[in-house]
Amino acid sequence: MSGPLSGLRILDLTRVLAGPYTTMILADLGAEVIKIEQPRIGDESRNFGPFKNGFSLYFMSINRGKKSITLDLKSDRGKQLFKDLLRQCDILTENYRPGTMKKLGLDYEALAGEFPSLIYAACSGFGQTGPLSEHGAYDMIIQGMGGIISITGEPGRPPVRVGTSISDITAALFTTIGILSALHQRNKTGKGQMVDVAMLDSLVAVLENAIVRYFATDEIPQPLGTRHPVITPFEAYESKDGYIIIAIGNDSLWERFCKHVGLETLISDTRFKTNADRTENHSELYPIISKKMCSRTTGEWIESLGEIGVPCGPINSIDEVVNHEQVKAREMITQVVHQLTGIVEIPGIPIKLSDTPGSVDKPAPSLGEHTDPLLMRFLGITEVEIEILRRERVI
Amino acid sequence: MSGPLSGLRILDLTRVLAGPYTTMILADLGAEVIKIEQPRIGDESRNFGPFKNGFSLYFMSINRGKKSITLDLKSDRGKQLFKDLLRQCDILTENYRPGTMKKLGLDYEALAGEFPSLIYAACSGFGQTGPLSEHGAYDMIIQGMGGIISITGEPGRPPVRVGTSISDITAALFTTIGILSALHQRNKTGKGQMVDVAMLDSLVAVLENAIVRYFATDEIPQPLGTRHPVITPFEAYESKDGYIIIAIGNDSLWERFCKHVGLETLISDTRFKTNADRTENHSELYPIISKKMCSRTTGEWIESLGEIGVPCGPINSIDEVVNHEQVKAREMITQVVHQLTGIVEIPGIPIKLSDTPGSVDKPAPSLGEHTDPLLMRFLGITEVEIEILRRERVI
Repeated sequence: MSGPLSGLRILDLTRVLAGPYTTMILADLGAEVIKIEQPRIGDESRNFGPFKNGFSLYFMSINRGKKSITLDLKSDRGKQLFKDLLRQCDILTENYRPGTMKKLGLDYEALAGEFPSLIYAACSGFGQTGPLSEHGAYDMIIQGMGGIISITGEPGRPPVRVGTSISDITAALFTTIGILSALHQRNKTGKGQMVDVAMLDSLVAVLENAIVRYFATDEIPQPLGTRHPVITPFEAYESKDGYIIIAIGNDSLWERFCKHVGLETLISDTRFKTNADRTENHSELYPIISKKMCSRTTGEWIESLGEIGVPCGPINSIDEVVNHEQVKAREMITQVVHQLTGIVEIPGIPIKLSDTPGSVDKPAPSLGEHTDPLLMRFLGITEVEIEILRRERVI
Repeated sequence: MSGPLSGLRILDLTRVLAGPYTTMILADLGAEVIKIEQPRIGDESRNFGPFKNGFSLYFMSINRGKKSITLDLKSDRGKQLFKDLLRQCDILTENYRPGTMKKLGLDYEALAGEFPSLIYAACSGFGQTGPLSEHGAYDMIIQGMGGIISITGEPGRPPVRVGTSISDITAALFTTIGILSALHQRNKTGKGQMVDVAMLDSLVAVLENAIVRYFATDEIPQPLGTRHPVITPFEAYESKDGYIIIAIGNDSLWERFCKHVGLETLISDTRFKTNADRTENHSELYPIISKKMCSRTTGEWIESLGEIGVPCGPINSIDEVVNHEQVKAREMITQVVHQLTGIVEIPGIPIKLSDTPGSVDKPAPSLGEHTDPLLMRFLGITEVEIEILRRERVI
């Protein structure tokens, strides 16, 4: 189905995760994304497992719906073709280490004069400015530097990473917002601009209350297991067959919970009267509730606590998530078909638009799959010329 | 400074985190955000600590730059004033439990006829459709249901939450993208639409390769501490004084690392020859590298490995993050001044736009701070009428 960004064309130099995740969202929402890849090599994530019949499913999941052109940006002819393509595009995206595009002579400053309406989006580890700007970065390094690991995990235990590449992904989401904001501005004035997003900045931006807590109290926020820093009880307890998460956000829910589970005596207990009391005396409260919760299964608790309106839930494994009735009803697992892999299950679009919803219906491209048709269509290049470009390793 | 969204006006019914985080981004980028709050009560997060002189810094950090109007949406007069205000706005945002706006008679279906160009954004736990739609949700519940907890933490240890409210925040970011996409569509056609984003969907969307790994292998992804599922060594090791994260993504880096740290014998060791070998034999490799890494401090390793280009980094605590030279250079910690709190440090804008960057310069509003001037300015209501509305508890 037609998406809200249909009619927009994006020239996409991004590789691996943060950049491709941005252009995946734009493609899902209807933009035409033309991915430029290095001839014969391509996006390095084409080599990331798991594979199906030799095709990377990692690559498939975040490059669905894009087109692939090979182009050697180091050659003069490649640069010229790049600019000729760019002339027909609205947005350029890249996630090279800062400095790389300048070396190619294709940085924003070099392009802005010739392409005044261009929106140029760069996503990098540390951003285009600052002392660490030109350092490389991986999600794991940024997770460590950005503080999120310091507040995730069990107190007193070794560090753990967030199980998904959260600094890549938050950077991708902020980059997408930056692009669409710049687009709105351009719709008013006709003028483009540069969007500069860093993975490190993005993690700082999502630390939310950890930052104000630190400045307000001078106490350094710590990992707390599954506990909420200022609401209690608001965490996971062992049940008879797994874990049950309970989220009791106010005193009336607390009373209802205590009565329901046979802990009435706690209601008048001065240690646990208000949320502040319960948080302060967490170490005394935790074992009391723990003892109670392990008497029933997770499913039994969800049913019984759900009936009285106490927010609670399970800890689902990935197989349970993808088979969950709500996840299915929301079409959050969808399929694409590729000639090499056959049917592949991938995540759906989490942005549900009522009128122009966009769609996930095309697989990721094979390397250079669209080189010939797009060069012909956009640049009027003949089959003979394409043959020469290929022989000269420009494409 | 003027932002790319300047000129846009948003009527904002959101409370607590996911919704307010969306409208915070829109306000940072220049939109005028008019927050409607319940008279005498307001957004419940005004009661979330930490506080400074009685003002919630939690509220401050995600409501900076917005205006506050009090309005009782349950009263007929309140509904009428709401619609009068909406007529002068581009976007409506809400994060009530699905069904609540319908009960008020202010859901998208009810409003769309009268306001055909309206962009109506709803962010909720489970979305506007599906069997769990009308269930309430907190971040912690969604983290459990959405699978991210199942892949975060140490193997064999109790579960841990991601230390920030990641399902609220990813939902906020997808909602923002939805709004801006719908805005682009509206700029072309004049027609508005509904944006429906669920926290659960958002977490599914950011699980990225965990989903394709599960479908490709039928193995359920597990928590792996700080380890990367398919790259080795790519994790944290204890150093002499803390931890050092090492991210070795290819074989040439592996050789360079081994030579540098005095583990040359590993280079020809068939157990560790390729990344696939190293990942398969992780349990044998880990103790060998561990023993080596604890011989020097984190700072020493960063200097020495940095020199040979091996990606590495520390695990920073929140105080180290906010004082980091790169974070400072990027202005990712900024200040606002409020009459009650004085200067407050809060996160900056992670989207750096070259031409219309937007700004964080105004504090969060006190409850109803802008009721009188905005009702006068937008609706031409007189001071006498405002007095009556206040007496009748409509505002």
